Amino acid sequence: MYTIGVDFGTESGRALLVDTRDGREVASAVHDYANGVIDRSLPGSDRPLPPDWALQDPQDYLDVLGNTIPAVLREGGVSAAEVVGIAIDFTACTMLPVRADGTPLCFLDEWRGEPHAWIKLWKHHAAQPQADRINAVAEARGEAWLPRYGGKISSEWFFSKALQILEEAPEIYHAADRLIEAADWVIWQLCGVETRNACTAGYKALVQDEGYPERDYFAALNEGLADVVDLKMSRDLAQLGERAGGLGESAAALTGLAQGTAVAVANVDAHVTVPAVQVTGPGSMVIIMGTSNCHMLVSEELREVPGMCGVVRGGILPGYYGYEAGQSGVGDIFAWFVEEAVPPEYHDAARAEGMDLHEYLSEQAALQNPGEHGLLALDWWNGNRSVLVDADLGGLLIGATLGTRAPDIYRALIEATAFGTREIIGAFEDSGIPVDDIVAAGGLAEKNPLLLQIYADVTGKTIRLSGSSQGPALGSAMHAAVAAGIFDSIEAAAGPMGKLRDEIVQPIAAHRAVYDEIYADYRQLHDYFGRGGNDVMKRLRGLRHAARSAG
Amino acid sequence: MYTIGVDFGTESGRALLVDTRDGREVASAVHDYANGVIDRSLPGSDRPLPPDWALQDPQDYLDVLGNTIPAVLREGGVSAAEVVGIAIDFTACTMLPVRADGTPLCFLDEWRGEPHAWIKLWKHHAAQPQADRINAVAEARGEAWLPRYGGKISSEWFFSKALQILEEAPEIYHAADRLIEAADWVIWQLCGVETRNACTAGYKALVQDEGYPERDYFAALNEGLADVVDLKMSRDLAQLGERAGGLGESAAALTGLAQGTAVAVANVDAHVTVPAVQVTGPGSMVIIMGTSNCHMLVSEELREVPGMCGVVRGGILPGYYGYEAGQSGVGDIFAWFVEEAVPPEYHDAARAEGMDLHEYLSEQAALQNPGEHGLLALDWWNGNRSVLVDADLGGLLIGATLGTRAPDIYRALIEATAFGTREIIGAFEDSGIPVDDIVAAGGLAEKNPLLLQIYADVTGKTIRLSGSSQGPALGSAMHAAVAAGIFDSIEAAAGPMGKLRDEIVQPIAAHRAVYDEIYADYRQLHDYFGRGGNDVMKRLRGLRHAARSAG
Repeated sequence: MYTIGVDFGTESGRALLVDTRDGREVASAVHDYANGVIDRSLPGSDRPLPPDWALQDPQDYLDVLGNTIPAVLREGGVSAAEVVGIAIDFTACTMLPVRADGTPLCFLDEWRGEPHAWIKLWKHHAAQPQADRINAVAEARGEAWLPRYGGKISSEWFFSKALQILEEAPEIYHAADRLIEAADWVIWQLCGVETRNACTAGYKALVQDEGYPERDYFAALNEGLADVVDLKMSRDLAQLGERAGGLGESAAALTGLAQGTAVAVANVDAHVTVPAVQVTGPGSMVIIMGTSNCHMLVSEELREVPGMCGVVRGGILPGYYGYEAGQSGVGDIFAWFVEEAVPPEYHDAARAEGMDLHEYLSEQAALQNPGEHGLLALDWWNGNRSVLVDADLGGLLIGATLGTRAPDIYRALIEATAFGTREIIGAFEDSGIPVDDIVAAGGLAEKNPLLLQIYADVTGKTIRLSGSSQGPALGSAMHAAVAAGIFDSIEAAAGPMGKLRDEIVQPIAAHRAVYDEIYADYRQLHDYFGRGGNDVMKRLRGLRHAARSAG
Repeated sequence: MYTIGVDFGTESGRALLVDTRDGREVASAVHDYANGVIDRSLPGSDRPLPPDWALQDPQDYLDVLGNTIPAVLREGGVSAAEVVGIAIDFTACTMLPVRADGTPLCFLDEWRGEPHAWIKLWKHHAAQPQADRINAVAEARGEAWLPRYGGKISSEWFFSKALQILEEAPEIYHAADRLIEAADWVIWQLCGVETRNACTAGYKALVQDEGYPERDYFAALNEGLADVVDLKMSRDLAQLGERAGGLGESAAALTGLAQGTAVAVANVDAHVTVPAVQVTGPGSMVIIMGTSNCHMLVSEELREVPGMCGVVRGGILPGYYGYEAGQSGVGDIFAWFVEEAVPPEYHDAARAEGMDLHEYLSEQAALQNPGEHGLLALDWWNGNRSVLVDADLGGLLIGATLGTRAPDIYRALIEATAFGTREIIGAFEDSGIPVDDIVAAGGLAEKNPLLLQIYADVTGKTIRLSGSSQGPALGSAMHAAVAAGIFDSIEAAAGPMGKLRDEIVQPIAAHRAVYDEIYADYRQLHDYFGRGGNDVMKRLRGLRHAARSAG
């Protein structure tokens, strides 16, 4: 028997058809969103959107279902009858206003020309003023949930976006019967049942064991927001791996699957990857390595670990507190370096060897021993999420000489992100949440063996690797199998369906010793520049802002 | 009437024929040294030289005289009778062992195959162990002259090199009747008179008002060196602008000049430039801007200014204490950046505009206002000479983001060197030696208007510019005019023969205000990383050394 996992990304959606007996990936298909990221003007309009806006079109999600699912059935030679379940994972918080029957407001002629009627994609950053107020009010009131989110709520999250709608387009806010995560909306379209998955509710909509923030808190933000939960949302949360419902008639027609096929509760891409790499309990940190790093860890204990993106009961695995930490710049720092700071000779050499420039620089950098380049960097090109939660920090490179070459800096940047990960691991360990080993997934982990070795050497942890290059979609297919009753729990699905490569990256003792020394310096610089010893980065940011405003 | 200045550089020598009435540069000619910098093997040998060696061939200097002087007479249409004087300036400390009659040991078959018999060029760095001992012994004995040289004697200087000869080739040391600066040796060849110019004696051979270091000190370094001054050198010093003698018969034949033509005492390239830009007294700092920056300032007062390369009475202008400070990396940091850290698109764009990449990046960087790039650098890619005197410091760049581009960093590096100059100016002012304004000379000053504006804005001083692109050779021609009796003093020659451009670079008040803020941060980082607040740069250097030794 088979299940299908659908992974909804920023630019496209991907379906994966998986054999539930052994996790074999039978077929996959991708569909690019026709409207992609809507950040210039609405489809069919040339009125420019304001800066920092990022919208999406719900029709694109339906088109993913309608294109990719028939495609994987066809490609895999599998009949609808053999598919017992479907599940999805999504970017988050990606949310939209809908009618009571689930119709997106942007599907209605009345509201189609109004940007606030569309889906706000996770990277819609125009709600920063609202986020600032959300933080200020929470801090002033001493809200107990605030530290669980590193003391700072992002402009990307649910109530920042909801409050922006209320304040900038109250007619949309009032016309909306529901404000809902796109993930949950897609599940609603599949099975006709409105659910709220515990994962996004917890990480993005501030649900803790005590429930949502209190009415008084919302009222303090804006009187009109006081009853947002009861009027526009739901207090019933669906646990991950639960069956949301059976596939409805129109969804069956759209996808070619059988009516009644089990539809699982929605999930988030990073979180769903955890069981896909066979992590089903405490001790193993899963790191999704890509543009940024996302660190997932579960524990039976609720502890206040500094700088978390969030701590949510059942947010990763049912029954455990799920901790999410993050590094806001990793792969994008390497990409910046390769695009903005590598001279032509290396581009030429990489081309001559038929290699990607990342690959070429890694190969050159791998010839060095730890400490050999004499450099140390702070990995803050895109600010710092965990553990400092400070977007106004900047990058630092120290120790350059006239003999410094591109592979030296490339290696130093990789090391800096490894030190950043060690800092996060240290925050968990200092809070009494053990980290025994690491499981790596994501594009960077697949492509860069030097990076993995450096992470092992810097953290002193062994690293195992995801056995699938489609971790999220595989994880979704596993949740579909649980929802379909093939397995009792996601833990039970992890053994047969989850995948790890055989190889294990082991720390090299001699490297560890050197990196221990360098890490002591990283920490000292980290605290000096990140915890108020010297706020030069903020002063530079302030001067930059002033110069740009004046210019 | 005319004089000739000859500027002996690292790779070539240049003669300049100048009209003494108005400083008009009538003709110039360059001769490349046939043997250039000898750093692989001796001419005619394939036995490799050890690392860090850099030698020269005295014959090359004679060939400069024999080629360039006839050439400028010819090109200028000037007869030998119209040339009343000749003077030279030189790299320093560039020294050699000779016989009592001036014959270089390397001219003798007996010693020609022995590397220590040749000229040790200024950048011969193989005497570092000797320099280390020179410093340690001086410090232990509390030698009063040590602070006048920033507390640290360089491996490039006279006694480091002399001690290396004694210890590694005692037979050469004993065969040498004289150890002498190449500058003084050339003068000896011209007029048959052995002189010791006060400039190199002071800056490179530790002569202070009290004379050379004491016999006991030399004996403490090595018993065999105890009488180095009396056996191999001379305590009689010749002042700058003095007539060393009249051109001898063979030199007249070599150069085509008239026998008896006045030959001036030798000088050093940077120092001789000071009167060439019409600076003849205290208050105006002359900065020779090139690969590194050299800062020259005179005063009637002897003060202990931290981090000097040297303070020497009569070392720049007769009658004044001449202060020399330096930044060990300036143009070479920009060159490093352009060669090692600028991506192809900027190379292509510069080529498309028919511009040098430095020029293109400067043009782009000039579009910005101070503070706009949000970056700050410490200009220590090649260590720091003044005021910290620490070769083990490394570069630092802070504030980078994913939006940082090459012109941003280029500008930040220029600013960093300007902050480094402000630090030096501050050291003078704090020591009671006023700096009223700046006169800039050298290749960087000529080529980069953005750099000059930034230096003015950062230091708050007006900057005037050398009117000659041959500052050293012009300065030598002026000293020749003094030696010939055309002028009573170099001060008197400066008005008619020295040259400044009409334009003056003025600080822009709005820029100064921003740079004052950024400079406060530069100072804080400078002291934190440079004065023991955090010795991370040295630890990184130590790890680099260990890794390279192990590798």
